[in-house]
Amino acid sequence: MTDASVRPEDWHAHPFDDDKLREECGVFGVVGAGEAAPLVALGLHALQHRGQEAGGIVVHDPQAGFNSVRRFGYVRDTFTSQDVMDRLPGGVGIGHVRYSTTGSKGQTAIRDVQPFFGEFAMGGAAVAHNGNITNADALRKDLIGRGSIFQSSSDSECIIHLMARSMGPNIPERMKDALRRVEGAFSIVAMTRTKLIGCRDPLGVRPLVLGRIGDGYALASETCALDIIGAEFLREIEPGEMVVITEAGEIASHRPFEQRRPRFCIFEHVYFSRPDSILGGRSVYETREAIGKELAKEAPVEADLVCPVPDSGTPAAIGYSLQSGIPYGMGIIRNQYVGRTFIEPTEQIRNMGVRLKLNVNRALIRGKRVVLVDDSVVRGTTSRKIKEMILDAGAEEVHFRIASPPTAWPCFYGVDTPQREKLLAATMSADEMREHLGVDSLKFITLDGLYRAVGEARGRDPNAPQYCDACFSGAYPVAPSDQIAKGFEVAAE
Amino acid sequence: MTDASVRPEDWHAHPFDDDKLREECGVFGVVGAGEAAPLVALGLHALQHRGQEAGGIVVHDPQAGFNSVRRFGYVRDTFTSQDVMDRLPGGVGIGHVRYSTTGSKGQTAIRDVQPFFGEFAMGGAAVAHNGNITNADALRKDLIGRGSIFQSSSDSECIIHLMARSMGPNIPERMKDALRRVEGAFSIVAMTRTKLIGCRDPLGVRPLVLGRIGDGYALASETCALDIIGAEFLREIEPGEMVVITEAGEIASHRPFEQRRPRFCIFEHVYFSRPDSILGGRSVYETREAIGKELAKEAPVEADLVCPVPDSGTPAAIGYSLQSGIPYGMGIIRNQYVGRTFIEPTEQIRNMGVRLKLNVNRALIRGKRVVLVDDSVVRGTTSRKIKEMILDAGAEEVHFRIASPPTAWPCFYGVDTPQREKLLAATMSADEMREHLGVDSLKFITLDGLYRAVGEARGRDPNAPQYCDACFSGAYPVAPSDQIAKGFEVAAE
Amino acid sequence: MTDASVRPEDWHAHPFDDDKLREECGVFGVVGAGEAAPLVALGLHALQHRGQEAGGIVVHDPQAGFNSVRRFGYVRDTFTSQDVMDRLPGGVGIGHVRYSTTGSKGQTAIRDVQPFFGEFAMGGAAVAHNGNITNADALRKDLIGRGSIFQSSSDSECIIHLMARSMGPNIPERMKDALRRVEGAFSIVAMTRTKLIGCRDPLGVRPLVLGRIGDGYALASETCALDIIGAEFLREIEPGEMVVITEAGEIASHRPFEQRRPRFCIFEHVYFSRPDSILGGRSVYETREAIGKELAKEAPVEADLVCPVPDSGTPAAIGYSLQSGIPYGMGIIRNQYVGRTFIEPTEQIRNMGVRLKLNVNRALIRGKRVVLVDDSVVRGTTSRKIKEMILDAGAEEVHFRIASPPTAWPCFYGVDTPQREKLLAATMSADEMREHLGVDSLKFITLDGLYRAVGEARGRDPNAPQYCDACFSGAYPVAPSDQIAKGFEVAAE
Amino acid sequence: MTDASVRPEDWHAHPFDDDKLREECGVFGVVGAGEAAPLVALGLHALQHRGQEAGGIVVHDPQAGFNSVRRFGYVRDTFTSQDVMDRLPGGVGIGHVRYSTTGSKGQTAIRDVQPFFGEFAMGGAAVAHNGNITNADALRKDLIGRGSIFQSSSDSECIIHLMARSMGPNIPERMKDALRRVEGAFSIVAMTRTKLIGCRDPLGVRPLVLGRIGDGYALASETCALDIIGAEFLREIEPGEMVVITEAGEIASHRPFEQRRPRFCIFEHVYFSRPDSILGGRSVYETREAIGKELAKEAPVEADLVCPVPDSGTPAAIGYSLQSGIPYGMGIIRNQYVGRTFIEPTEQIRNMGVRLKLNVNRALIRGKRVVLVDDSVVRGTTSRKIKEMILDAGAEEVHFRIASPPTAWPCFYGVDTPQREKLLAATMSADEMREHLGVDSLKFITLDGLYRAVGEARGRDPNAPQYCDACFSGAYPVAPSDQIAKGFEVAAE
Repeated sequence: MTDASVRPEDWHAHPFDDDKLREECGVFGVVGAGEAAPLVALGLHALQHRGQEAGGIVVHDPQAGFNSVRRFGYVRDTFTSQDVMDRLPGGVGIGHVRYSTTGSKGQTAIRDVQPFFGEFAMGGAAVAHNGNITNADALRKDLIGRGSIFQSSSDSECIIHLMARSMGPNIPERMKDALRRVEGAFSIVAMTRTKLIGCRDPLGVRPLVLGRIGDGYALASETCALDIIGAEFLREIEPGEMVVITEAGEIASHRPFEQRRPRFCIFEHVYFSRPDSILGGRSVYETREAIGKELAKEAPVEADLVCPVPDSGTPAAIGYSLQSGIPYGMGIIRNQYVGRTFIEPTEQIRNMGVRLKLNVNRALIRGKRVVLVDDSVVRGTTSRKIKEMILDAGAEEVHFRIASPPTAWPCFYGVDTPQREKLLAATMSADEMREHLGVDSLKFITLDGLYRAVGEARGRDPNAPQYCDACFSGAYPVAPSDQIAKGFEVAAE
Repeated sequence: MTDASVRPEDWHAHPFDDDKLREECGVFGVVGAGEAAPLVALGLHALQHRGQEAGGIVVHDPQAGFNSVRRFGYVRDTFTSQDVMDRLPGGVGIGHVRYSTTGSKGQTAIRDVQPFFGEFAMGGAAVAHNGNITNADALRKDLIGRGSIFQSSSDSECIIHLMARSMGPNIPERMKDALRRVEGAFSIVAMTRTKLIGCRDPLGVRPLVLGRIGDGYALASETCALDIIGAEFLREIEPGEMVVITEAGEIASHRPFEQRRPRFCIFEHVYFSRPDSILGGRSVYETREAIGKELAKEAPVEADLVCPVPDSGTPAAIGYSLQSGIPYGMGIIRNQYVGRTFIEPTEQIRNMGVRLKLNVNRALIRGKRVVLVDDSVVRGTTSRKIKEMILDAGAEEVHFRIASPPTAWPCFYGVDTPQREKLLAATMSADEMREHLGVDSLKFITLDGLYRAVGEARGRDPNAPQYCDACFSGAYPVAPSDQIAKGFEVAAE
Repeated sequence: MTDASVRPEDWHAHPFDDDKLREECGVFGVVGAGEAAPLVALGLHALQHRGQEAGGIVVHDPQAGFNSVRRFGYVRDTFTSQDVMDRLPGGVGIGHVRYSTTGSKGQTAIRDVQPFFGEFAMGGAAVAHNGNITNADALRKDLIGRGSIFQSSSDSECIIHLMARSMGPNIPERMKDALRRVEGAFSIVAMTRTKLIGCRDPLGVRPLVLGRIGDGYALASETCALDIIGAEFLREIEPGEMVVITEAGEIASHRPFEQRRPRFCIFEHVYFSRPDSILGGRSVYETREAIGKELAKEAPVEADLVCPVPDSGTPAAIGYSLQSGIPYGMGIIRNQYVGRTFIEPTEQIRNMGVRLKLNVNRALIRGKRVVLVDDSVVRGTTSRKIKEMILDAGAEEVHFRIASPPTAWPCFYGVDTPQREKLLAATMSADEMREHLGVDSLKFITLDGLYRAVGEARGRDPNAPQYCDACFSGAYPVAPSDQIAKGFEVAAE
Repeated sequence: MTDASVRPEDWHAHPFDDDKLREECGVFGVVGAGEAAPLVALGLHALQHRGQEAGGIVVHDPQAGFNSVRRFGYVRDTFTSQDVMDRLPGGVGIGHVRYSTTGSKGQTAIRDVQPFFGEFAMGGAAVAHNGNITNADALRKDLIGRGSIFQSSSDSECIIHLMARSMGPNIPERMKDALRRVEGAFSIVAMTRTKLIGCRDPLGVRPLVLGRIGDGYALASETCALDIIGAEFLREIEPGEMVVITEAGEIASHRPFEQRRPRFCIFEHVYFSRPDSILGGRSVYETREAIGKELAKEAPVEADLVCPVPDSGTPAAIGYSLQSGIPYGMGIIRNQYVGRTFIEPTEQIRNMGVRLKLNVNRALIRGKRVVLVDDSVVRGTTSRKIKEMILDAGAEEVHFRIASPPTAWPCFYGVDTPQREKLLAATMSADEMREHLGVDSLKFITLDGLYRAVGEARGRDPNAPQYCDACFSGAYPVAPSDQIAKGFEVAAE
């Protein structure tokens, strides 16, 4: 059922730039550090890049019980007021930001906004999920057949229903039961009345980190969310690990799953994570600079200016400039008053597209041979427009350098990707792409180059890839069974 | 869990007059008469007196599937716009208006607003319920223990979960299964993708009527909701009957329950139903006029003016005047811009109480002996204030005549009543009440007198009462088992 | 200029019944009685029947200066919250409710909502005006030519500009200067930093009363607004009088205008004023009952039931019943959840018209000869629909009795009337009207009968009418000069 | 008077970073290029950095007349919907974005939002003003004394009142009359029913440019607003010039003022203007890069990393890096989901201050000697916090390099500056500032260095400065007479 009642009338945001892959979620939780809600709100604000459409917070207080607020819009607009904080008392809390999948039936309803909550015989539990359950359709069908009533269209809701039906004696045990039936990628932050729980799937596809704040602990998708609340980054939750943290500050580590070789998402390094977050002991910014350097080695060109496509191409462009010696300059300026959405734009304004966000620094570009560095090419629509803007401004030559290999396969592990046929690299060769974009040259970093930049000195191990790189290689570490049932053809790993 | 997110910030209505019993719900449904949503909205508007806090509509369309809108506030403000109607396409639809129970933990969340919806293996179903399930706590506990996740704090949600777990082959059969496990009072309007369903509990405590509109049918709590859409009143759904109506206009009548002697709520005649509705073949207005006449016979008084407490006391006052020959006059004027609520009033305004709603027609009252006719006395707080207003205006004498017997017991069948100790008649004798209110005389109609006025020429049959009159007599036709488990002591029937 | 920015998006109210004359304004002010704003809000709530579209309050506090809040919607929804009261500190305050003229260019903008405010060299002043300035167009043109900038489309704004340009030494003197240039009808409540001012035009067309509350004073359009705040009604402000009241409770009475014979609006008795207000020493309710009696004498009929068109026809119907001996009954029931507006109704709902508001009490009407008593016939559209509803319900005969003479002329003194050609009585004889409405008989009270009912024992003095009755007689006591300039033809008085 | 009614309840934005000077306005207008409103909205979006609090658009259409919409919030949220565009028909239009002065009486009311509009005898005119009128208090007092009624607290409103009182035969002539009485800085875009007017004060303190779009013309504060609508940049409006542009595309240039030597605001180069705008024939980005290079020459230091304070310090940091050879790196990451405001933040969140916006890239900073390049130091509060973040992250040394001279004097020409005593440089020597900030070194570019960077090869001419640099030098080219009347002491020029 579509519940059209609770979406605010004035909130029909339009993603003005749909030519990016989108991380669908960020999760955060805290316990033992005083009032939870303001810390969760700050954490979610720092994770806003992982989901801009809506957010939710659940807290528990011994007197007031469980309380939640779920809202469309940015955290800074929806979760910062005293009024909202007053409704969210308690010392245990979790939160979630989400970006809805586009192209589906319609818009997210407030019912789809996590965390999901269930009241069990032994008390309530709330669950926030980053990732995607690849057998959700099958699980949902089975659960409905047995009398469960789903409230949302979200795959993540399966988890709470599986927990409700588990015979486990307590909530962590019920969560183990539930997650053992789930396939796909998940980094979960959950809570009971007194405990904070974190869990990553056996492959560890999505990130999840642990930090200490005062006498308490926080769990977050990225370290930048620990920084904002002044928490100390302790370690990553390990692939296949579940931690259960009490209000008193005791952490128990469980291993509910059979052990597997990890396959962390390599695209987190390329684009999803914030440049100031730390992944694998190095800042994402440095990794992206290293990608730029690697790219300069693999795909040099004679030029006058290295110019990033802002903001995501910036670190790689700096790296390319450092390696090549070609001066770095901001030939494209981003309007800082554009978020990722426009509210109900007119047709005319929608058609402005990238001009709403970017403007060329004409005086700087004119007469120059320009190396444009971008993080990825998805549909190629934005790349074409940027090329035109650059040429209109009088550039002599335009050379695209892309900080990732061609994106040729959809992601089924929690990233919003277009259907395969919409991916430029799925239907064109590198040369066709260059011609399609109309640029003087177009080079992608190689898969091996990317592995080297993220620290794998010998590149990708083709027999046992160190990362999940399915979007580049088609090598899906977990078979996307719902998709296969619908006819999707996976390339052999 | 309390979901504080979806209640509109500016909607903290305050019931400015809590000295009335409140019907908690009105239900409406339509099939086979063209677009359902506008008809449902009109029907709910006509039933607004049965629930002012919130309303909801669910419709189904073969293309658009199930859609719902649920809103706080009056139907005329929330369901009349083209924008809302556009979100609710389809030819089958049901709706619900509700008044939340006061005194409970807090305010209704949008999650508590009916109709409730469940997606089953054979398709979705929506259910709107008027009444109260007296074993809801026990059912909920059992369902949670078996893995159902409740989304609201409403007793009515049990029905949809029981249906979800039924093994019945279709939705009407599942509803029978569910309702056989439910105790209490229910008049239900439900829908599947193509069918409209109506059902009344075996005692028929709450009303439910069937009407014809064009080639289709409508179900409604009262006939006034048929009038507004131009539907012809066919008959009442009988106690213990379930009707299943197809889009093609076929009606099947089922009898899922063991047959019992009906016990319709006698207070529907006194106060809940609208005066222009027809109950038992007679307009409620005429019945109330008859109550006034009966009261004039039972409790005559010498006086100069018969004056109603507007608006609910008006028909009985007219009856009293006709019978007694004392002139009828509007000594109290109601401000027509008061609904049943004020939006977020200040303390000072809240304290104005009844003055916000009523003003005395001083010139008319001065120097007169006044018979004040009201429908009932609940807490007595309003009665005292009205008496003071009348005396301040210079009345010589004030005689209260009440169109119902003393309200001494709470209702557990879908009416919001204060706890027993708050009911004036539960703690005081008639004489103590008169003294407490400070009036020259105070008379209630007798239970037998009331039965005569509603058409039972020989009054109440004490061995087999023809109506549910538990609020007056304490004779509960269905044992309120949840309440008994919490310690409530029922008088022996 | 039309300022489309400040009208709330969701406030496009539709007057669901435009077949009534509408008072356009109510005014209220208070000084010396503690915090002014809550008292003004209550007073405006009691005057809501005089203007439902929007309201405004201005207060002054020595520290906080002048503050104002202006809002669309009912007072009970817009001025009752602590939040709004907190923005309105101070011991002097005035307020205004307004009903916009229909059929004009469009909707009221918030800029048109009074009180109007001006900052003068000697301090600020705010003015709230009930009535209409008949030379406003000419004044506006002159003021613009001399450099005044108008902020609204309201005729009342002229007053504050004339005050701004006066050379008077203080605000009351400037107001006298201004009002001597103004033609038409005005009952004004105004304020300076420390004083409350009330003034009526020389004819006293619109009402204005003075009350005492504690050590302070209140001014209001009607006495019902004094009742709600517990103020004692002292006297009417006299036609042509200006009172200036200080915070210390001193009242000075001025006579700024040449004296004329008063011409109070007789329609205030018929319809505009609330039945519990006192006009000329008698309650409006009693006057209306007297009109009904007079009508029963003038236009008797054999019938079984006297039935009011609710709510405005009720007192006259009671009077008709008392005089004629025909039983009184509520054959038409008003839905109490209809105010005077619907929010953005769909076409279909708009077409429901009177059915949204009224329903026939079929059981009561069936087979009866019914006398329907209404206050007036304007366009006749509603009357026709009511007649149809009554006949559909099975009435044998329908006799319309109207508590005012035929309305044949527009009002230019602060009442929203349709153009002359839309008034049924302007284009049809009494018999044509009867035929047009399709009723068995149609009788209006005579002008003399109406004068008798309001207390003029010898009826109307044709040489010096005691009231303004221009809407019935076409005898305009003030020449409507702007209208005449536009071609309106006045009947000779 | 403070009008508290029309500010949206939920719009109490908090400027989370008040340690910057703020341009107070951006203006835009278009004629002859089709529907004006969408172009004005786009232009204002591109100028959003010049005013984030509120915006307004006025248009004129022969049928619909003048229409306006004024709103709080970002253009992208308030002026992009079809609904708003539909209310703004017409081919001539102007718009304004504003940032309110902080520390003043309170928050902007919607009445203060420009454009201002006046209806004159010859038709209406709307005016949007960037700059500040330094004799506004005196003008207002005089106008009030003569009967003008002000609607806002804005200095700019004087212009429209002076125009209303002018005896000039048409609107451009009236504007000349008005502006000749005005002292201070103004770049004005105005409109009549058919004409677009642009005007700059004789010193040309604020920017204003002319562009061609199709057969029509646009006026804008900066060229970036021409770029977004695809207009071609023609030229700057000259200091002291007024242009009047007809719908037919005829441009007339007037010189209403005595000619003076221009004094363009040098801070527009440093901070206010967008880096992709063109000032004096060069992109602002290049000028800022040149400032960085100049700074590297004037204030070299041995270090490992040049790091900008994002985003405004970025181009100067790139210049410093290029000149010095020290590698450039993004040691501080800006959260792109922070605009310049937070909605109603809690105390706790407000106290987070800069951490809401900036996070240190710890891995990059650790162990390095860092040159931090910022555009200016105002109060120094942010600079201290950034220094602390950098040291916490493990930097060895912190060297601040500032791309402007010490800001020691308030601006009275349309920039929001703190009172003089709040300016760090007004009360401390360079060395005291270094100590106060706690950094290893602190160097500002010299005034001569800044002049060289903006293209004055021989630096500042002390006898006839080429720019307005009052904020650095205290040399005010127009005496701020209102301020002097209040006691402000100007340094001798």
